[in-house]
Amino acid sequence: MAPHSLSTNQSSVAASGHPVKPAPVIIDGIPINNLTRKVLDSQSFLSQSMNIILEDAVKKSTDVKEKVCEWRSPEELKELLDLELRDEGESESEILQRCRDTIRYSVKTTHPRFFNQLFAGMEPYSLVASVIVEALKPSLYTYEVAPVFTLVENAVLRKMMELIGWEEGGDGIFCAGGSMSNMYALNLARYHHCPDVKEHGLSAAPRLVIFTSEECHYSIAKSAALLGIGTKNVYVVASDERGKMIPSALEELIETAKKEGTIPFFVNATAGTTVLGAFDPLEEIADICEKHNIWLHVDACWGGAALMSDRHKHLLKGIHRANSVAWNPHKMLMVCLQCSAFLVRDKTSLLQDCHSSRASYLFQQDKFYDVSYDTGDKSVQCKYTVRPVSAFSRRPECTNVCFWYIPPSLRNLQGHPKFWKKLHTVAPAIKERMMKVGSMMVGYQTHKDRVNFFRMVLVSPQVSTEDADFVLDEMHNLGKDL
Amino acid sequence: MAPHSLSTNQSSVAASGHPVKPAPVIIDGIPINNLTRKVLDSQSFLSQSMNIILEDAVKKSTDVKEKVCEWRSPEELKELLDLELRDEGESESEILQRCRDTIRYSVKTTHPRFFNQLFAGMEPYSLVASVIVEALKPSLYTYEVAPVFTLVENAVLRKMMELIGWEEGGDGIFCAGGSMSNMYALNLARYHHCPDVKEHGLSAAPRLVIFTSEECHYSIAKSAALLGIGTKNVYVVASDERGKMIPSALEELIETAKKEGTIPFFVNATAGTTVLGAFDPLEEIADICEKHNIWLHVDACWGGAALMSDRHKHLLKGIHRANSVAWNPHKMLMVCLQCSAFLVRDKTSLLQDCHSSRASYLFQQDKFYDVSYDTGDKSVQCKYTVRPVSAFSRRPECTNVCFWYIPPSLRNLQGHPKFWKKLHTVAPAIKERMMKVGSMMVGYQTHKDRVNFFRMVLVSPQVSTEDADFVLDEMHNLGKDL
Repeated sequence: MAPHSLSTNQSSVAASGHPVKPAPVIIDGIPINNLTRKVLDSQSFLSQSMNIILEDAVKKSTDVKEKVCEWRSPEELKELLDLELRDEGESESEILQRCRDTIRYSVKTTHPRFFNQLFAGMEPYSLVASVIVEALKPSLYTYEVAPVFTLVENAVLRKMMELIGWEEGGDGIFCAGGSMSNMYALNLARYHHCPDVKEHGLSAAPRLVIFTSEECHYSIAKSAALLGIGTKNVYVVASDERGKMIPSALEELIETAKKEGTIPFFVNATAGTTVLGAFDPLEEIADICEKHNIWLHVDACWGGAALMSDRHKHLLKGIHRANSVAWNPHKMLMVCLQCSAFLVRDKTSLLQDCHSSRASYLFQQDKFYDVSYDTGDKSVQCKYTVRPVSAFSRRPECTNVCFWYIPPSLRNLQGHPKFWKKLHTVAPAIKERMMKVGSMMVGYQTHKDRVNFFRMVLVSPQVSTEDADFVLDEMHNLGKDL
Repeated sequence: MAPHSLSTNQSSVAASGHPVKPAPVIIDGIPINNLTRKVLDSQSFLSQSMNIILEDAVKKSTDVKEKVCEWRSPEELKELLDLELRDEGESESEILQRCRDTIRYSVKTTHPRFFNQLFAGMEPYSLVASVIVEALKPSLYTYEVAPVFTLVENAVLRKMMELIGWEEGGDGIFCAGGSMSNMYALNLARYHHCPDVKEHGLSAAPRLVIFTSEECHYSIAKSAALLGIGTKNVYVVASDERGKMIPSALEELIETAKKEGTIPFFVNATAGTTVLGAFDPLEEIADICEKHNIWLHVDACWGGAALMSDRHKHLLKGIHRANSVAWNPHKMLMVCLQCSAFLVRDKTSLLQDCHSSRASYLFQQDKFYDVSYDTGDKSVQCKYTVRPVSAFSRRPECTNVCFWYIPPSLRNLQGHPKFWKKLHTVAPAIKERMMKVGSMMVGYQTHKDRVNFFRMVLVSPQVSTEDADFVLDEMHNLGKDL
């Protein structure tokens, strides 16, 4: 492994020691990188495009007088955007036009009349934090390469643990989304219960079983499939009318699973379900988990922010008894995408032991600083950074508002056998109309035996009472002839 | 599930229909969101902070006359940054100062003298694309909510498949990093081989075994642990001096595994290894995989970009025979973090079937447009968007330059028993000095029985020949007295 020779080529060097005309690096006669331009040459392009972004993607996108979406079918939009990737490249003015088009035809998820999913509007401080991250391109595997963000991550995780009520701290990591945090929980619980699985796999292990309510997020089932546990080993616990897990049903199911010879090792409780916004009763679930020695994970991705409200934190009473918690600041705390915290009560380096691989090119142990700040090996990935700046300034509440719009033609039909069948077609029809008009966006879905209803998500700081009222009026405008 | 009542409160409404003083939404007497400010009020803050970012995080961070890093120990930096999260919040001028400090004390991964890891410098078009994404906050689960980005993802994936040589196309998805793409490959191969595992888990399955070279990325072992396959079921194939997998060693190991009664189902070949930048011989490995009916995955996260160079694409000869490929545009194609493509040759919806959960609130089948554009269910996550804009304008080559700096005091010791022991301490000592001076950043590590050496990564468009030469001079300055 002799060092390659680094050939110098013929560019002149200024008094500063830096070349007047920088040249690409050439090794063994082959150009290695493509030094076509210095960033300085792009200053004008960068400021022009930032102006477009601030004007079109921030200001206009959150302006109630603008449309929420500029609907085009996939075929039309493909034509409009001209997405063919050619060899020759494009001029900067063409690229600026592409920026404008991208923004124009994108859905404005930060618009005051976007209620479609669990998005959280536009928080300017968070946007700035995200742009800093994009420009610096840090990666959080080591303190060496991301000193500021490593410490920020640590401070924010500590604060979140304090809010959960883990007085003696714990451990944690930021993940690329709530699905990942839930998956980490499942993996960690399995490692805690059967550490041998990490090396030997599941093929010689007993049948491991997990429990979650029928209202839980779909990432629980996806994680069970991915981790080799299997979706049939996800035992689904009944929920009540409001969407809360029924503790007695959980305990019965655990007893049943034990009788079947399986090993129950993981219960997922949800604080803020995706559809109805329900909070599972954590104290009663924690009692059952302690009794049966089962890992309790709380998926508080959506509802965790209630911990910051004196008025609403009772919804999560008992969360300090969880073994692990998932909580997404990119939802109600309005941090930009993606920022999900995975928090663990354990302090015996379970997270590190479970996920470590000790890559020699990153986690050298002979570094000159305290390597306990090199947190990357707690992750199953090389870690990109998170955006936890200014996440702690608001006190929101969990709100998914679900309702049917009943058009006049159906109002006399209530009780009639055709009523539900017809009502089921109303939401998709109104949704099509609102998308094409671009006046607002509200999601719809079925739930158990309930036909299609609208689910309106109210979190964004851009949404006023008037915007919420507008939804009901506009529903009627769009649907009164159905 | 009766609709909640949306109470209107007392703000006056202007002629436009929009309130003069917007008020937060109140349901059942409880304020739901926190409408403290309109985005318009933040215009000045936003433009001031964007100016700081362009000046400090883009222009100065890539300026060779500035330092690569402003080293502070974790304890010092904690003091300087004041990371305590308080309830009361801060003024905008304090927040602007925090932006400056964050940038100042962060490592400049886009600096011309940052050679520390597989980072790719600053590409202004890509930065703009990323900022658009941050401002629009799209999520790629459905065409409905991310029409432009869904089509862009599709167009970029198609182009990548074309470059791989899959003339009849295939399937694919963008993931949050190369580790995720490799994990998807492993999961998909397992599903292809044993579809029952998705539902029933591995506890009743045979012992599944995978093969990869000793030079592969650590995500292969991490994925095997996560998926319940177990790290002991990762059979490690020997590599030659240059770091390339030895095909005969692979075939021998497959035969051994079969004799042990295991099921070999997955081979990972690496195109551009992390440490040495080696390319495994794909044609010979593909022959062996076809003969034994084993899924061939190519981890081309680092080296995939060579496919775009007529001069270097021979390094990946045979890649079209792979069943799946991982390729990170955020590395040599200079897209901002994170952008990793997972590409699959299969066109029978294997990816969808493997990962689907069919959440009713996202993937309604009665939508008014072609729902085949709703790609989110191919993912194990809710999908955040990717940044594939302008990824196709460069023709780089794979370059990890590894070398020892031998200080004068050791030059007469070559052959002496103490030589290697002393040389091992040189790189950490020089590293500490370069970090404290902030003149450059180059990573070091051991490899097999080789003592600590430097690994210099040359991709960034900011790096000139002079910057590369500087490294050798600076090494000598920093290390000549050791």
